[in-house]
Amino acid sequence: MPYVNIRITREGATPEQKAELIGGVTDLLQRVLGKNPATTVVTIDEVEFENWGIGGLPVLDYRAAQAAKEQKR
Amino acid sequence: MPYVNIRITREGATPEQKAELIGGVTDLLQRVLGKNPATTVVTIDEVEFENWGIGGLPVLDYRAAQAAKEQKR
Amino acid sequence: MPYVNIRITREGATPEQKAELIGGVTDLLQRVLGKNPATTVVTIDEVEFENWGIGGLPVLDYRAAQAAKEQKR
Amino acid sequence: MPYVNIRITREGATPEQKAELIGGVTDLLQRVLGKNPATTVVTIDEVEFENWGIGGLPVLDYRAAQAAKEQKR
Amino acid sequence: MPYVNIRITREGATPEQKAELIGGVTDLLQRVLGKNPATTVVTIDEVEFENWGIGGLPVLDYRAAQAAKEQKR
Amino acid sequence: MPYVNIRITREGATPEQKAELIGGVTDLLQRVLGKNPATTVVTIDEVEFENWGIGGLPVLDYRAAQAAKEQKR
Repeated sequence: MPYVNIRITREGATPEQKAELIGGVTDLLQRVLGKNPATTVVTIDEVEFENWGIGGLPVLDYRAAQAAKEQKR
Repeated sequence: MPYVNIRITREGATPEQKAELIGGVTDLLQRVLGKNPATTVVTIDEVEFENWGIGGLPVLDYRAAQAAKEQKR
Repeated sequence: MPYVNIRITREGATPEQKAELIGGVTDLLQRVLGKNPATTVVTIDEVEFENWGIGGLPVLDYRAAQAAKEQKR
Repeated sequence: MPYVNIRITREGATPEQKAELIGGVTDLLQRVLGKNPATTVVTIDEVEFENWGIGGLPVLDYRAAQAAKEQKR
Repeated sequence: MPYVNIRITREGATPEQKAELIGGVTDLLQRVLGKNPATTVVTIDEVEFENWGIGGLPVLDYRAAQAAKEQKR
Repeated sequence: MPYVNIRITREGATPEQKAELIGGVTDLLQRVLGKNPATTVVTIDEVEFENWGIGGLPVLDYRAAQAAKEQKR
């Protein structure tokens, strides 16, 4: 009877990949905790880049900053 | 002051139906717990079919599998 | 197959009241959208007073401020 | 390592405003609780008007009702 | 950079089982979508029985009803 | 009318610090987006260490691994 919510940035996950996530999480909960797959619900939220922040920055700015840092090394 | 989040698959709920959900949940919280409607917030999330899983499958595959099972009976 | 999350302040809701919320929301979703009660999941989160804010204040401070305002009228 | 979810009605927040929210919340958590900005995640959900309810009404109906009340005063 | 929230009924999941869930979900996201484990956040919410509803009933009532149905067959 | 949910590990945030978070987020939303503080709701979820994962590990194991790495440098 678990409920799982997966939040990722919207960047092209395919229906096949989403099906794999749904199946994989459901299996994991059955294997580890014996949860019944029949009543396991999984939802996936795809969040626009500008709506996702990390390190105090929108994610694309964050990635650009990380890449710039890498180059300087 | 409650906050309620309703998550459903996106399959054509009308503005009238959503208004009915909002009103109905707000009434319920007032009737059962005496919560003030003025500060009761309700949000509805409509989730794409491919982003909703149950029984280890994306919901449309799940429904197809259920329908096939019914037919076999 | 809906998922509903109800968040309220923790202030003594009884198991009977919670059962009424669960039943009431499930009925509402069936009546308004034809959702199957068998796969409707409802969770209730009870949040401590100091973890709930409204009007920029923790809820007990907010209520005290509202009560003070009422008295002045 | 905090996770913050900000839900607002979808009514034209710009990328710059969202970046300000992300930066502001991340700063706040560092200043108040010493949380590391590097692992602070912020997501913003923009919710359609018809999917947001307050006072038992969809938000646009609610605003219209409030405006009508104001005028009567 | 994904965020995953797993909600289960509170019924004795051990720290080892929780670690297995955390590791398993993080692996899955890396394998399926190439997500970086370093910034994958997983939270587990354990919900009291009386705060979890399915089929319009608190979960323990639901399980009792299911068991009674099974016996009748 | 925004709703904000802040999730942190449970490690001793005081009522004063929580009040500061509530006030700070509410101010931020007013300053950046002109949101009315009167209807801004903020909830704080404190999550047990064993229920929070990052980098594929429960957070205390993750911190220990990070500290060990630091020492080796």
